[in-house]
Amino acid sequence: MEKKLYHGAAYYPELWDEKVIDEDIKLMKQTGINVVRIGEFAWAAMEPEEGMFDLSFFKNIINKLYDHGIETVMCTPTPTPPIWFTQGHPERMYVEKDGRVMGHGSRQHACTNHPYFRLKAELITEQIAKEAGSLPGVIGWQIDNEFKCHVSECMCETCKDLWHQWLEERYGTIEQLNEAWGTQIWSESYHGFEQVPQPGHAPFLHNSSLSTMYQLFSMEKIAEFCDEQAEIIRKYSSAPITHNSSMMFSVDNERLFKNLDFASFDTYATIDNFPAYLINSDLWRNIKKGKDFWVMETSTSYAASLESYASPHPNGYLKAEAVAAYALGAEGFCYWLWRQQRSGCEQPHSSVISAWGKPTAGYANVLEVEKMRKEIEPIILSTRPSQAELAITYSDRAKAFFKTESHRGLNHRALLVDFYEKIVSLGIHRDLIPEGAGLQGYKVLLTPFIPYVSSELVTRAKQFVENGGVWIVGPLTGGRTEAHTVHTDCALGNLEQTAGAKVLFTYPMDGSGTIGRAFDVSAPLGMWSSVFEFDQETTVGLIEEGLSEGKSFITEHRLGKGKIVMLGSMPLGTEGDVMLQKLVDHYSQEANIVLRTDVTKGTIVAPRKGDGYSIWFVINMDGNGGSVTLLKEGIDLQTNSVVCPGKLEVGKFEYRMIRINEMEGI
Amino acid sequence: MEKKLYHGAAYYPELWDEKVIDEDIKLMKQTGINVVRIGEFAWAAMEPEEGMFDLSFFKNIINKLYDHGIETVMCTPTPTPPIWFTQGHPERMYVEKDGRVMGHGSRQHACTNHPYFRLKAELITEQIAKEAGSLPGVIGWQIDNEFKCHVSECMCETCKDLWHQWLEERYGTIEQLNEAWGTQIWSESYHGFEQVPQPGHAPFLHNSSLSTMYQLFSMEKIAEFCDEQAEIIRKYSSAPITHNSSMMFSVDNERLFKNLDFASFDTYATIDNFPAYLINSDLWRNIKKGKDFWVMETSTSYAASLESYASPHPNGYLKAEAVAAYALGAEGFCYWLWRQQRSGCEQPHSSVISAWGKPTAGYANVLEVEKMRKEIEPIILSTRPSQAELAITYSDRAKAFFKTESHRGLNHRALLVDFYEKIVSLGIHRDLIPEGAGLQGYKVLLTPFIPYVSSELVTRAKQFVENGGVWIVGPLTGGRTEAHTVHTDCALGNLEQTAGAKVLFTYPMDGSGTIGRAFDVSAPLGMWSSVFEFDQETTVGLIEEGLSEGKSFITEHRLGKGKIVMLGSMPLGTEGDVMLQKLVDHYSQEANIVLRTDVTKGTIVAPRKGDGYSIWFVINMDGNGGSVTLLKEGIDLQTNSVVCPGKLEVGKFEYRMIRINEMEGI
Amino acid sequence: MEKKLYHGAAYYPELWDEKVIDEDIKLMKQTGINVVRIGEFAWAAMEPEEGMFDLSFFKNIINKLYDHGIETVMCTPTPTPPIWFTQGHPERMYVEKDGRVMGHGSRQHACTNHPYFRLKAELITEQIAKEAGSLPGVIGWQIDNEFKCHVSECMCETCKDLWHQWLEERYGTIEQLNEAWGTQIWSESYHGFEQVPQPGHAPFLHNSSLSTMYQLFSMEKIAEFCDEQAEIIRKYSSAPITHNSSMMFSVDNERLFKNLDFASFDTYATIDNFPAYLINSDLWRNIKKGKDFWVMETSTSYAASLESYASPHPNGYLKAEAVAAYALGAEGFCYWLWRQQRSGCEQPHSSVISAWGKPTAGYANVLEVEKMRKEIEPIILSTRPSQAELAITYSDRAKAFFKTESHRGLNHRALLVDFYEKIVSLGIHRDLIPEGAGLQGYKVLLTPFIPYVSSELVTRAKQFVENGGVWIVGPLTGGRTEAHTVHTDCALGNLEQTAGAKVLFTYPMDGSGTIGRAFDVSAPLGMWSSVFEFDQETTVGLIEEGLSEGKSFITEHRLGKGKIVMLGSMPLGTEGDVMLQKLVDHYSQEANIVLRTDVTKGTIVAPRKGDGYSIWFVINMDGNGGSVTLLKEGIDLQTNSVVCPGKLEVGKFEYRMIRINEMEGI
Repeated sequence: MEKKLYHGAAYYPELWDEKVIDEDIKLMKQTGINVVRIGEFAWAAMEPEEGMFDLSFFKNIINKLYDHGIETVMCTPTPTPPIWFTQGHPERMYVEKDGRVMGHGSRQHACTNHPYFRLKAELITEQIAKEAGSLPGVIGWQIDNEFKCHVSECMCETCKDLWHQWLEERYGTIEQLNEAWGTQIWSESYHGFEQVPQPGHAPFLHNSSLSTMYQLFSMEKIAEFCDEQAEIIRKYSSAPITHNSSMMFSVDNERLFKNLDFASFDTYATIDNFPAYLINSDLWRNIKKGKDFWVMETSTSYAASLESYASPHPNGYLKAEAVAAYALGAEGFCYWLWRQQRSGCEQPHSSVISAWGKPTAGYANVLEVEKMRKEIEPIILSTRPSQAELAITYSDRAKAFFKTESHRGLNHRALLVDFYEKIVSLGIHRDLIPEGAGLQGYKVLLTPFIPYVSSELVTRAKQFVENGGVWIVGPLTGGRTEAHTVHTDCALGNLEQTAGAKVLFTYPMDGSGTIGRAFDVSAPLGMWSSVFEFDQETTVGLIEEGLSEGKSFITEHRLGKGKIVMLGSMPLGTEGDVMLQKLVDHYSQEANIVLRTDVTKGTIVAPRKGDGYSIWFVINMDGNGGSVTLLKEGIDLQTNSVVCPGKLEVGKFEYRMIRINEMEGI
Repeated sequence: MEKKLYHGAAYYPELWDEKVIDEDIKLMKQTGINVVRIGEFAWAAMEPEEGMFDLSFFKNIINKLYDHGIETVMCTPTPTPPIWFTQGHPERMYVEKDGRVMGHGSRQHACTNHPYFRLKAELITEQIAKEAGSLPGVIGWQIDNEFKCHVSECMCETCKDLWHQWLEERYGTIEQLNEAWGTQIWSESYHGFEQVPQPGHAPFLHNSSLSTMYQLFSMEKIAEFCDEQAEIIRKYSSAPITHNSSMMFSVDNERLFKNLDFASFDTYATIDNFPAYLINSDLWRNIKKGKDFWVMETSTSYAASLESYASPHPNGYLKAEAVAAYALGAEGFCYWLWRQQRSGCEQPHSSVISAWGKPTAGYANVLEVEKMRKEIEPIILSTRPSQAELAITYSDRAKAFFKTESHRGLNHRALLVDFYEKIVSLGIHRDLIPEGAGLQGYKVLLTPFIPYVSSELVTRAKQFVENGGVWIVGPLTGGRTEAHTVHTDCALGNLEQTAGAKVLFTYPMDGSGTIGRAFDVSAPLGMWSSVFEFDQETTVGLIEEGLSEGKSFITEHRLGKGKIVMLGSMPLGTEGDVMLQKLVDHYSQEANIVLRTDVTKGTIVAPRKGDGYSIWFVINMDGNGGSVTLLKEGIDLQTNSVVCPGKLEVGKFEYRMIRINEMEGI
Repeated sequence: MEKKLYHGAAYYPELWDEKVIDEDIKLMKQTGINVVRIGEFAWAAMEPEEGMFDLSFFKNIINKLYDHGIETVMCTPTPTPPIWFTQGHPERMYVEKDGRVMGHGSRQHACTNHPYFRLKAELITEQIAKEAGSLPGVIGWQIDNEFKCHVSECMCETCKDLWHQWLEERYGTIEQLNEAWGTQIWSESYHGFEQVPQPGHAPFLHNSSLSTMYQLFSMEKIAEFCDEQAEIIRKYSSAPITHNSSMMFSVDNERLFKNLDFASFDTYATIDNFPAYLINSDLWRNIKKGKDFWVMETSTSYAASLESYASPHPNGYLKAEAVAAYALGAEGFCYWLWRQQRSGCEQPHSSVISAWGKPTAGYANVLEVEKMRKEIEPIILSTRPSQAELAITYSDRAKAFFKTESHRGLNHRALLVDFYEKIVSLGIHRDLIPEGAGLQGYKVLLTPFIPYVSSELVTRAKQFVENGGVWIVGPLTGGRTEAHTVHTDCALGNLEQTAGAKVLFTYPMDGSGTIGRAFDVSAPLGMWSSVFEFDQETTVGLIEEGLSEGKSFITEHRLGKGKIVMLGSMPLGTEGDVMLQKLVDHYSQEANIVLRTDVTKGTIVAPRKGDGYSIWFVINMDGNGGSVTLLKEGIDLQTNSVVCPGKLEVGKFEYRMIRINEMEGI
């Protein structure tokens, strides 16, 4: 790809006639759309009858767009196999946990593990890659679309067999599985892998190991399918490959993107939950570290389907979203979708242009984005997003553990976004990094809500600490083994031993009237908690009231040049928020984190590095305006005037770009 | 039928012994019950073994009742096929959307489209018609019972085949279906009608066209069954035929009643929702225009089943319900049921007489009804209900569209009742008229909540407007095509062009902080909205705040001698109610509607026309008493005294009958 | 069993290695655990392959425990058939009402009525009984585990056949069934028993008789299975046999325990619902009258599974629970479970020892229990629980009627616990007695919430009344026949006639604004109500407002030396509670109940009888402390000091034991 900032939209030319397409291209040019994503549901248009391929329509479209200066991200259309694949073949279809076999008419209805699906997907993908792979307009590829957004783990017979194979590869012998899963419980024990059930109908809950492993199996299989697809494309095209994923889907993104070239994601958070939008940039920048990511789908105004709709964005918010994404590392910012659907089930979804070809309610905002994009493009292209000094561990495997063991209906993503929001409010720049990511350059690592911490992560984090880092672990981290069982050596296994902590016992503190005190704040404690032995040396948080009065819920352990801080419980309420922020603030100061500043709620700084200087993008996300503290004199790049250190104001949904020279670390 | 006012009850003599039946007849006479409805669930009693018919019991009952002055509405018993039909034949049974096949033991468990069901239904109906058709006691017929009250669209294999035939008849070629439904989306495209699925299991929503058309198919099929039944009866009986339907059931009442002789309905609204009771009379009077309708079922006090019950009516309310029904066009007012069930699943349901043969809690109210009936009978019989000058379009097809596309859980009936209540509160007499109804005699037509407006309706309404009528269209009207897709020429298609309106864009206003102003009222706007171009000439409602500030949400377009008023959005809250009422009031005055008067909330006027005079039935429905304004001197028919123009009081649940001479229009 | 107080825990040695087991035994001794329950899920460990039995592990465990002074309750492992039983045999599995066939991996997945299950269960039970029956450590047996806790009525083909047989045995001819169930309704009528469906899929509710009878059938079958198991064990062991049941499970406990030797139950109520804990002791003491019962399972702190958890007990509550149980008739007080599960789905559940072998959050409370147990053991062993003078009828059959006919979502157990709590608050000692229990020794009998009152119970209660007792009947009692139909002679059938009452009509009073007055209190009335004729002689509660103003809702009828008091309605709210308590208080005084005293809310008296003296255990259950009134001088057995009559204080969760000599009745 030529280096530029992309402003794009999903486009479905197969649904419209030539006149409309020509009109669309004209309107795209007027609007500033320089890239479209096409083809991800068009299997039937490409292979209307089994084995009869015709890619000419799409090749023509790609070329025509390119002739008008619009580039293309080409997709494989595998989420929607045509009727010739599905009709009369229930054995090829996705099967729900409750046994319902999916039929034709929506999407993701096929089992992506069925061998015939894999074969047909391979053939259509090869056709597309061969035909479109060398077209100059194709600047990237997207495999399939939103894997596992409507479905999760398939329960079909094909999956059953693959599950047994996967288990055999993982465990070697059935005895080892029995031991790892503790299947003597409730007489579950198996004599062979072929006996291990899928987690289907049962009078009560399944074994946690079974439930979690079936999720990991499913995550591995969809990644394997994605690998296969990417491999085919690479035979015919050098354009980089991605998938439009999300924190919400039933996939392991770290694994899924291992063999892809760049990260992209879809997001439809509304303004009242803007941290759920923002967290994506801080995560996906690190899923493929060093590579720019794409916002592959977001709404111009509101997400909707036949049965629901979100509230529309206020004017100005879309621009704030876009500038935040670009500043935090996005190369592309794309809408779903260009032209409103006239049929299907997403007609009400917002778009750039209506089904009758007119500007929509969000259109003026799209123009604002384009104006901004042009303004910032040279600044973005000459800088790189700054690496944060504080990292938060992100794990889709943890998401699977929480799906199996939800405690009291906890949702992993919601927990994480809440936690993330507290860091954002502190004005500390941060990375979300996958479990397996290197820790170079970080000063503080936070690892909350990860029931199983691999020994590999413990080893890596230990080294990080020994070299001077601070590792803050918890809450809800470390209490489960790889197989989703309870440790039998101590509460938190290897982690506890590495930290040198001593957990007395664990229990759910909700409703138990427990109050903890740390950093001069007292707050209620909740969620499943580890209670530590009180020790003058290590205790940082003390339980003042409740069953464990006098014991400890935060401990601090020196290791080499750094510290491991164990957070055993979840501080709750307003006071709990303050306590958590004080904790992070305390260790961030101790670790000498400098890439931070005061921000008012709803306003953020996105820092980028140039050669010998930094750029701060200061952006108001909540529509209330706000300010940040500038630590050193800078230059406002919009006015080219000097800005003094101190309070820097930013208006409702506005952004400012401040260039700061030679400032250390920022 | 001899002309009289009927006061009746559902009766199940097949469940009781002769002694009880004799006692029942005696009690009916004492109570004033002059008609019973029998037989609708008695198939097993009439044909205990397949092909062994015995109607003698029912013939004897009908004759015995007749001998005691009680007439009979005879039913076909098809909602409850006997065990010989159902046992061992899952292929004959109704199949739920989720695939569950119904079994024996409740009702509506058979697929009414299965050919063997149709055959057996034909045979039993023929037997009944032949045996009972000429009995003097039989004054009417009811086909089946509450079609589609417990079930909606069957998913069985029979229905699948019929669905394919129906589609072929509707679309001719599969290409036309593909085009109409836009099936290229998500690679749904079909090569033949036999490939089109029923809207069963899918990972996400089905194509809107598929979902809506399957409902229309189902509605057509049940009407076709009803037609077949009626045709058989007519061979043997000249008594008029009806069906006890409802706005709630999954039927198209306009179509269903096309080949029936008079309308009847069941209603169990409670007093706190009395407009939901009242709306029925204003609707069913127009489903078979010019024919009196029947309240075929209502409770004496409360509806109930094993799992739930409503609160009992306060004393006096039953009489208010009955007088309102008679005055608004009912010929019959009937209870479900005469004698409390001793078995089954509706034992707790209120009745006239308990299972042990004693008066129930509601009995005194039944006596009040009878007293009232006697009093009003000569007045009712010598007059006819007045046609309203204001009509509201009613569409069960719209109900199907809303079931497919519920926006945010909207319910068509609830929307309509709320809207209706506002007209009632204004004291304007009104008709609810089916989509296909003629518009003669109306001055104002309201068409809210109808996503698809047929070109036929547009044409008819246009003519109505050209002749001087005011057509108020919206909210939520016109945005969808016949196939439940989005228009591609403009937002509202033909309607928009006919009105000469210009929709800029459409979007959901809920939660967007939009304020509209019209008729000197400012109110929040919500629901899916059409925003119109501002135009000094046409704008009546202006958007003061929100994304579309300065644009228009109500426009007015002159056409011939009349106007089309486009209502693009839903005014919300108390202020929204005021705005809607001011809108209706404004155009009602402009259109010179005279059949109206001031009423206090909870009190209504039901106007009837005699020869050279009108009768106003003034009825308090809410138990708080109230008043109406009498526009001209009249005569109180209960006291035979003159009543002066001005405020006319009516007590708690009381009614007054005022005769007014030669008053124009009323 | 040697006479002692047991303090025990559920133990799963099959899940742990020898080293852990040895450590466990050491810790049990330290903790004071003198009995364990083992084996109830260990079928796979005992019969790993079909027909290959090996009980040596368990025999060794039992002997080893015994050598260390720990006795054993041995279980049959039938809730969890191994994979060789379940795999590939869907026909052996439990089938849900919605048709879902259970698979392997949880528990209660087999149909307990399948002949092959019965055979295999017989064989494993015989093996266990033979091998372990004569071991000195085995002091008791538990059949299976928590019958029907996760499942209720199986819908498999085996059950279908047995259902038909059961019906034939019950009704003799299909005509009698048709008549009893009133199946002419909705053409349900059957020609043979093989036609009667199970209550599966239907568009609406099933016939109440069908629904209720299917539950009774299921309850009988599980009891029959339990009988079979017990019979086998008795061939090899003289140790007494029990089952760990609950009020919550879908069983008829009176029937289930008929052929067992002692009662035991599981309970996990939290402190905020402590009456739901307490009610068990007052019930199970009477399920096997004269025999001590066991609390077979309760948590040391909180119940939990992967998906939920309760709040932990406050410190001190566990001891209060235990002393209440022992004082009210328990011989054993046992935890679920000794060592936290490391695998499965109940890892989060509280235990005595963690999975890593350390004391849990609840451990200190377990030590408190043991200290208390030692202190009270001689006092308990030399006394017996006092029989109450007031009894409340308990019926699991009524629970089945409420499941069929829930009125408005009523739950039988919740109704009963609420009612029970009012008696507890009055300080009246009480027994909950099964329907068939003798009434000797009682002065007042309360029979609320029992829709069907058998003529046998009426006869027995009548005799009780004639001999001077007061029978308070209602609310919601007596309105249904044995077949769950409505009476046709009068509202309450035999009961009404026996009482000499006259019910005018019945209806649901909720939301009807009805106010009743009795015992100088006015209160709203609700729930399904019987309204009685007003009669100066018999009326005790008068309806002051509402549809039935001037009629009666409580009546009193002299019969012999006693009275039948009919309570037709449910007094609601705070005033309703006062009225109900005044009613009970009034008749308790009239009947001269002396086994009572004033208690503050949350504090109870558990009275026991010795030879010429009583012991009052005064226990604070709610953690707020409280007092009771001592009617006569006594001796505090903890301090050996005299306590004067009057107010006796008890601290937070504390207990006192007061010995009172020769006090009549107490």
